[in-house]
Amino acid sequence: MPISEFSLIARYFTRPVSPSSGVALGIGDDAALVSVPPDQHLAIAIDTLVAGVHFPVQASPGDIAYKALAVNLSDLAAMGATPCWLTLALTLPAADPHWLEAFAQGLFALSEAHGLSLIGGDTTRGPLCVTVQVAGLVPVGEALTRRGARPGDGIYITGTLGDAALALAQLQARTRWPEQTAGAGFDPDSDAAALRARLHRPLARVQAGRALRGQAHAAIDLSDGLLADLGHILTASGVGASLDVDALPRSAAFRRWEQAQVLPAPETLARTADTADAGPPLPLELLLSGGDDYELCLCLPPQVQTRLATCATGVALTRVGIIEASSGLRLHHADGRVCTLPGHRGYTHF
Amino acid sequence: MPISEFSLIARYFTRPVSPSSGVALGIGDDAALVSVPPDQHLAIAIDTLVAGVHFPVQASPGDIAYKALAVNLSDLAAMGATPCWLTLALTLPAADPHWLEAFAQGLFALSEAHGLSLIGGDTTRGPLCVTVQVAGLVPVGEALTRRGARPGDGIYITGTLGDAALALAQLQARTRWPEQTAGAGFDPDSDAAALRARLHRPLARVQAGRALRGQAHAAIDLSDGLLADLGHILTASGVGASLDVDALPRSAAFRRWEQAQVLPAPETLARTADTADAGPPLPLELLLSGGDDYELCLCLPPQVQTRLATCATGVALTRVGIIEASSGLRLHHADGRVCTLPGHRGYTHF
Repeated sequence: MPISEFSLIARYFTRPVSPSSGVALGIGDDAALVSVPPDQHLAIAIDTLVAGVHFPVQASPGDIAYKALAVNLSDLAAMGATPCWLTLALTLPAADPHWLEAFAQGLFALSEAHGLSLIGGDTTRGPLCVTVQVAGLVPVGEALTRRGARPGDGIYITGTLGDAALALAQLQARTRWPEQTAGAGFDPDSDAAALRARLHRPLARVQAGRALRGQAHAAIDLSDGLLADLGHILTASGVGASLDVDALPRSAAFRRWEQAQVLPAPETLARTADTADAGPPLPLELLLSGGDDYELCLCLPPQVQTRLATCATGVALTRVGIIEASSGLRLHHADGRVCTLPGHRGYTHF
Repeated sequence: MPISEFSLIARYFTRPVSPSSGVALGIGDDAALVSVPPDQHLAIAIDTLVAGVHFPVQASPGDIAYKALAVNLSDLAAMGATPCWLTLALTLPAADPHWLEAFAQGLFALSEAHGLSLIGGDTTRGPLCVTVQVAGLVPVGEALTRRGARPGDGIYITGTLGDAALALAQLQARTRWPEQTAGAGFDPDSDAAALRARLHRPLARVQAGRALRGQAHAAIDLSDGLLADLGHILTASGVGASLDVDALPRSAAFRRWEQAQVLPAPETLARTADTADAGPPLPLELLLSGGDDYELCLCLPPQVQTRLATCATGVALTRVGIIEASSGLRLHHADGRVCTLPGHRGYTHF
């Protein structure tokens, strides 16, 4: 039985809005109306997830919704903004009640955890595609941008890298969980599940961004991989950087997988992009260029670094390198050896 | 040659932003930052156009962009808001420079005409799909909504109805331009072109909405057809209405087409929705349920009606009916005869 756009919205996407939300008029009119306090800037981010490109067509609808919102929250986190309102443009091949129910659950699970209100949207018929836009508030003058990094700033990463990329590589059968995990202890069930959770339900580091607004010199969220995304900070700020690849933060599951790998011969490192799909991914590829991390990369001046222990960032921050005046990005190991990783610049959209 | 998302955005979608635009940070960071004056509400609307659903796959890219923005501007117009900023989520099968160039031209032609700034977006690979979100400003307390209509309000329509629906019917070969136009004067070239322009490049009635904010009791933009959209006002306001179908505003081209029709026998009016596709559309179907008008329907109290001549609405306003206390929508002719048009409730999205 066909369902009209109006009953679809009423049934699945209309929830009460709290009086403190700043929403003067929510879903159900030509546009929504919200109040922005006078000392705040409005921060706006928009991202699209396309079936078959950003997630498999058969992905759990709850995960699709959760991730579509999370990647936007991650953008606002990187600005130091507090997310307030979201709009949803949902294109669907058909209005399947079970699918919509699960989608709405995933969406509201995350939006309600952050106190966000869904204030509007559009539902259309077509190939499955989800666009979420999030708007938030940040005190005027305190937003974090990509362009303030200065030589001497420490480069910090929230949480851990490479987990989502490792989970994706496994789902795409580009790497098998080692059956021989002697000495490493990788658990093909619980460890794999932990990694997949990072892929399907990324954690936006909203609290960390807020805690460091007005303090970090620059910030970006890691969606395309650290190399590519840190590169944006370097370009925007007109600086270079040096990264210690051994310091890159890894989750326990990632470490166990890494330790269980038979390390490839060194010449494999120099393989070209053309042959990159031929073998399993290298740990460093996943950490530096895997993408889908949705962690923050922050450039912190020394005086902020000394105060880090008292910042309520809600997540571990790991120092992985330093901003330098000389342009370019230099990779080295903890012992000072140069690390080269040619041909990897993060995910390319086209 | 593949083009990265970053060069695509830089090449086609980055234009200078004027200092008076309220944009503190535009394209190129994790999120955009804008300033909202303290006495204003922020109005937000979002709409998606999908290839093969809302436009033919082979449609002119400039027209696609123009319309994707115009339908959003129309939503803000219906709130009485002044559009300020837009974001674009563009999903493309491939990054074709000619297509993108033309798309950007269509987008900026309209955005610059309204003084709008493109502040952010996302480009993804996938089936062609365009989501535009527009944000604007409206003085607190003056926004037009759907829920303030009161008995005695006059129902007014900006511009003319049915033009886009007639053009679409012709493009879909559901109606032929009459070859015998004796006495009617319909010109298959110039008149048809005028109608197609209304389909491909609708005019959002931003000025009319602004002129009547704080004055109209209720407003909606006509996207799904007058019957369906006025129905939303009636439901939201808890009132009914009576419409004079002979007063519905028609363009000169529409009138000439209408006069050149061989009028169907009265019993054709009673055909069911199942057989509605069998014949050419009736003029009244196009006017009442054709959709894609992007005119405003406004409910004006008597004291505003007397001042209409001095309102700078930028477009003709035609009185087509009256709000009544009794629920339901009654259609009549100018001579008082009841008009029935069963089975037509506007465009259904699913």
